Amino acid sequence: MVNEKEENVVFVGKKGTMSYVLAVVTQMNQGSKEVFIKARGKAISRAVDVAEIVKNKFVTDAKTAEIKIKTEEIATEEGNPLKLSAIEIKMIK
Amino acid sequence: MVNEKEENVVFVGKKGTMSYVLAVVTQMNQGSKEVFIKARGKAISRAVDVAEIVKNKFVTDAKTAEIKIKTEEIATEEGNPLKLSAIEIKMIK
Repeated sequence: MVNEKEENVVFVGKKGTMSYVLAVVTQMNQGSKEVFIKARGKAISRAVDVAEIVKNKFVTDAKTAEIKIKTEEIATEEGNPLKLSAIEIKMIK
Repeated sequence: MVNEKEENVVFVGKKGTMSYVLAVVTQMNQGSKEVFIKARGKAISRAVDVAEIVKNKFVTDAKTAEIKIKTEEIATEEGNPLKLSAIEIKMIK
């Protein structure tokens, strides 16, 4: 089962970019050596912004270790299948 | 000098996703063993869609070899500097 609140994972959605930046920075400051930033669909651009802002402004010893993309099939509210691109950015420090 | 029409590069912007898919597929069918899909800002999500659609629907032996993200500084129309996230997806077949 996928738990979007699992440790070391920040799931980027429709909130402001800085909310997610703060979430990643907090996890790193609490000792996480790696944090996964995940997003789907239009939020993918925001996930890339989050990784870049964390690295350039807040945790300057953090790096983007690996970036994966894939296609996920989710169900719409009407129960129809919908294919969405997804990204997973692994940041390490 | 950066030439957005250079060979093996598809620069994803505001057109429909399928225009860029077609551009990548055409390059691969003309013998390119690698194609770079590049995008900035909000077009990043579309670039990921392009890579996934090429791989899943059109060139099934194509793979995502490497994905890089970075921050680029561009000038606005008023001449002010603006920082934008950018992505580069290297596809190989």
